Amino acid sequence: MITLSSDFGSPYPAAMKGVIKSRCDAELIDVAHDFPRQDVRTAGFWLREILPYFPPAVHLVVVDPGVGTGRAAIAIRVGEHALVGPDNGVLLPAARRLAGRDADLEVFEIEYGDPESVTFHGRDVFAPAAADVHDVGVARMAELSTLATGAAYEDLAFPEADVDGAGATGEVLVVDGFGNAITNVPGEVLEGRFGERIEVDGEAAPVAPTYAAVDPGERLVTVGSHGNVELAVNRGRGEDEFGVGPGDPVRLEW
Amino acid sequence: MITLSSDFGSPYPAAMKGVIKSRCDAELIDVAHDFPRQDVRTAGFWLREILPYFPPAVHLVVVDPGVGTGRAAIAIRVGEHALVGPDNGVLLPAARRLAGRDADLEVFEIEYGDPESVTFHGRDVFAPAAADVHDVGVARMAELSTLATGAAYEDLAFPEADVDGAGATGEVLVVDGFGNAITNVPGEVLEGRFGERIEVDGEAAPVAPTYAAVDPGERLVTVGSHGNVELAVNRGRGEDEFGVGPGDPVRLEW
Amino acid sequence: MITLSSDFGSPYPAAMKGVIKSRCDAELIDVAHDFPRQDVRTAGFWLREILPYFPPAVHLVVVDPGVGTGRAAIAIRVGEHALVGPDNGVLLPAARRLAGRDADLEVFEIEYGDPESVTFHGRDVFAPAAADVHDVGVARMAELSTLATGAAYEDLAFPEADVDGAGATGEVLVVDGFGNAITNVPGEVLEGRFGERIEVDGEAAPVAPTYAAVDPGERLVTVGSHGNVELAVNRGRGEDEFGVGPGDPVRLEW
Repeated sequence: MITLSSDFGSPYPAAMKGVIKSRCDAELIDVAHDFPRQDVRTAGFWLREILPYFPPAVHLVVVDPGVGTGRAAIAIRVGEHALVGPDNGVLLPAARRLAGRDADLEVFEIEYGDPESVTFHGRDVFAPAAADVHDVGVARMAELSTLATGAAYEDLAFPEADVDGAGATGEVLVVDGFGNAITNVPGEVLEGRFGERIEVDGEAAPVAPTYAAVDPGERLVTVGSHGNVELAVNRGRGEDEFGVGPGDPVRLEW
Repeated sequence: MITLSSDFGSPYPAAMKGVIKSRCDAELIDVAHDFPRQDVRTAGFWLREILPYFPPAVHLVVVDPGVGTGRAAIAIRVGEHALVGPDNGVLLPAARRLAGRDADLEVFEIEYGDPESVTFHGRDVFAPAAADVHDVGVARMAELSTLATGAAYEDLAFPEADVDGAGATGEVLVVDGFGNAITNVPGEVLEGRFGERIEVDGEAAPVAPTYAAVDPGERLVTVGSHGNVELAVNRGRGEDEFGVGPGDPVRLEW
Repeated sequence: MITLSSDFGSPYPAAMKGVIKSRCDAELIDVAHDFPRQDVRTAGFWLREILPYFPPAVHLVVVDPGVGTGRAAIAIRVGEHALVGPDNGVLLPAARRLAGRDADLEVFEIEYGDPESVTFHGRDVFAPAAADVHDVGVARMAELSTLATGAAYEDLAFPEADVDGAGATGEVLVVDGFGNAITNVPGEVLEGRFGERIEVDGEAAPVAPTYAAVDPGERLVTVGSHGNVELAVNRGRGEDEFGVGPGDPVRLEW
């Protein structure tokens, strides 16, 4: 199985699918192709949250603002999974979540020579590489002559929230399609507080186990499916009502 | 085969796909993930129109404004098809259309204990249930220990239009992506009237067999692919030109 | 394998998938369902650029402003590929690119009688035809009783650019999702000019091998992955900064 993720929108991902199916018979599963354009950080977050739910697979990821520059192309082996994409950090949060420990990451540089296009490495570099890894098998990917072991790589990590006795200081990592503002504050801080009200940036909001626990249109603070504190509105958009977006600081107090 | 339908947008459906593929080897086919957010009625309409074209399959449906509340999770067996989703009526129009008769619906409650997340039952409750039904087979789904027979369930039915000698009184059920306003008036009322003009809410419009039978930008009344009367504009948006939206009453007169 | 392309948005493509899977066991791959509504020319361009990357397959294409009128339905055999869609030219650019020479195109008319719906031939005419071609095999598609050989067909060709000693005169064919304005000027005209500045409609812009070769927000002229000259902005939208859209003339001078 090969999963596909990109910020390409449509119809460019189909060219990658054609290339892959021309080289191997992998089942193809789309993760998303509407990641915010060239936003490595947001894509990195979502891949970390989603790829661990997949069985062993090759994960092709192309969010690549540096396409055609000197940035390297990499492939990472993590147990029975492989990740293939640009060397800009986008693969790292998911790779670490899959691995549990950095020691279990094996990073290869993809040697890609002179591809057909310098602006569409998704089609001309990454899709062929993902197909080749799938074809030889993740366990034996080190045998591919196009993969060089021991590559250095760019990292990407999300800031950690500060939790103290009076509250927590963190930031919004991403906003999902429902408008829920997902923070980096671990959901555990809300344990024992459901039904209470806490302050979010100085304004009170109820802590609720789920969206529908408050009236439609009402704000709430909850633990999202990713395990982090989320600022939400039942049947509405938390980003609007809380007035926050990706990267904004958030202070919770109780 | 498992079909997937939701109002999740992107990238949440991919987590459901990962969960399913971790538990069984079903082929996955997306129906839609852009149903209007938490709009059980619109999703129910489209599923009724589309699922009957599929061969026997498990149909996973998650449009679920009550996620995390006390609402039940259900699975329905209809011949060789199964439908899995929240107990809010969203499955019923499609189940009835597949069945022909209510007597042929077998409804189970899914016992799901304490899922990982209370806000993402699509991933933690419904996807595993759909995979399990697929794995054991629809014919034998009653053997699953997680399915309790004889469940009561919430219903969802669309209002019927009144047809009289002078016309028909109905309502707009949904508007499709082309802007066509799909009513609940059965298409048969237009038989023998193609080429004539009728009145729609007091204003004349031609009855035409297809969009391109009138000039670009012109209004028309036609029978859509679902068999109902549709208010449309050739190469334009019927909802705008007729000034109607979901739930609005419509009066046709001839 | 059957690829699917349309301007249907969602959820209509799922009905086509159900019909196909009811008639054969082809693997289904979406190319795009968000082609601009009823824009035969833009869809024709993208299919020409993308379908050649696929291994032998049946390509179902439904961008069909004339649905329900007298326009024919056609199927084209090109080597091991088949294309199925309306007779409005949309299949021709891809068919020619796949063929290399017109002599290698075999065009059939699909005899479809009286379909269930006159407004959704994608579901009722083209999907069944694509499934039937897949089922019998492209090599033997002429044996299908529903296909009549020797069909005349509507053509679609893109204008060619004029290249002279001082520059090139062409037009914008399409704008992609990143806002890149893709012209009909062959990329070869930029050979040897990377790093220089040329004039685009009288205003200077740098010729760069890739987007990130200029600063974010800066305009550039490059060769896109399709091999044509493209007007772009690094991390921005070329269509806005160059003020051009599909069909607009473009003059390059050096």
